[in-house]
Amino acid sequence: MTLRHKDETSTCRLVGDVLARIGDKWTVFVVRLLADRPMRFNEMKRSIDGISQRMLTLTLRGLERDGLVTRTVFPTVPPRVDYELTDLGQTLIHMLQGLGTWAIEHQPTIFAARAAYDARE
Amino acid sequence: MTLRHKDETSTCRLVGDVLARIGDKWTVFVVRLLADRPMRFNEMKRSIDGISQRMLTLTLRGLERDGLVTRTVFPTVPPRVDYELTDLGQTLIHMLQGLGTWAIEHQPTIFAARAAYDARE
Repeated sequence: MTLRHKDETSTCRLVGDVLARIGDKWTVFVVRLLADRPMRFNEMKRSIDGISQRMLTLTLRGLERDGLVTRTVFPTVPPRVDYELTDLGQTLIHMLQGLGTWAIEHQPTIFAARAAYDARE
Repeated sequence: MTLRHKDETSTCRLVGDVLARIGDKWTVFVVRLLADRPMRFNEMKRSIDGISQRMLTLTLRGLERDGLVTRTVFPTVPPRVDYELTDLGQTLIHMLQGLGTWAIEHQPTIFAARAAYDARE
């Protein structure tokens, strides 16, 4: 196999692009949080330890742009803004669960490998 | 659910860490390439369009450090160096295939969502 082949290459780029989206540091937290139910901005901010207003805004905007999250403004005073996973966003949950299982299962092996590598180099 | 809960938070961090590793731009290419058979450095460099010597070195070093790839030096003249997926690295292939399938399936939806978002904002 060579990755010069056009289809292979564009698939790899696509996977890289998707991973960059869902692999963003805060995206994992936000998707996990919205997996249960729609939430308001401030509620999410309080629930995710250490996230700044700016980072939560950017993360939600990225997810909204990709069609993974919807933003609904209710015309109350003050306006209420709910964020919710779309059907497409819901499909991310399963993948993140798979990755989570993999990560938990292999964490000890990876950490041991890192320690051994760092001791060697 | 609140992500303040310690286990939830550390699991999310772990998944984020794993995604940062396998979501690295070139890692997807390298893992896909080594999925078939062990390869030498220069052979890989020729097979991945646009990768620099430095980026391939860094990508392989990161994968080696995490115990996902082994580097074997054969004492020939000049020395021959083979890179190979470990058993743990092999398990990445399945996950990347899952992500690839998801990415290909939902690419039109994501691109359409992006175009609509950009037109709106």
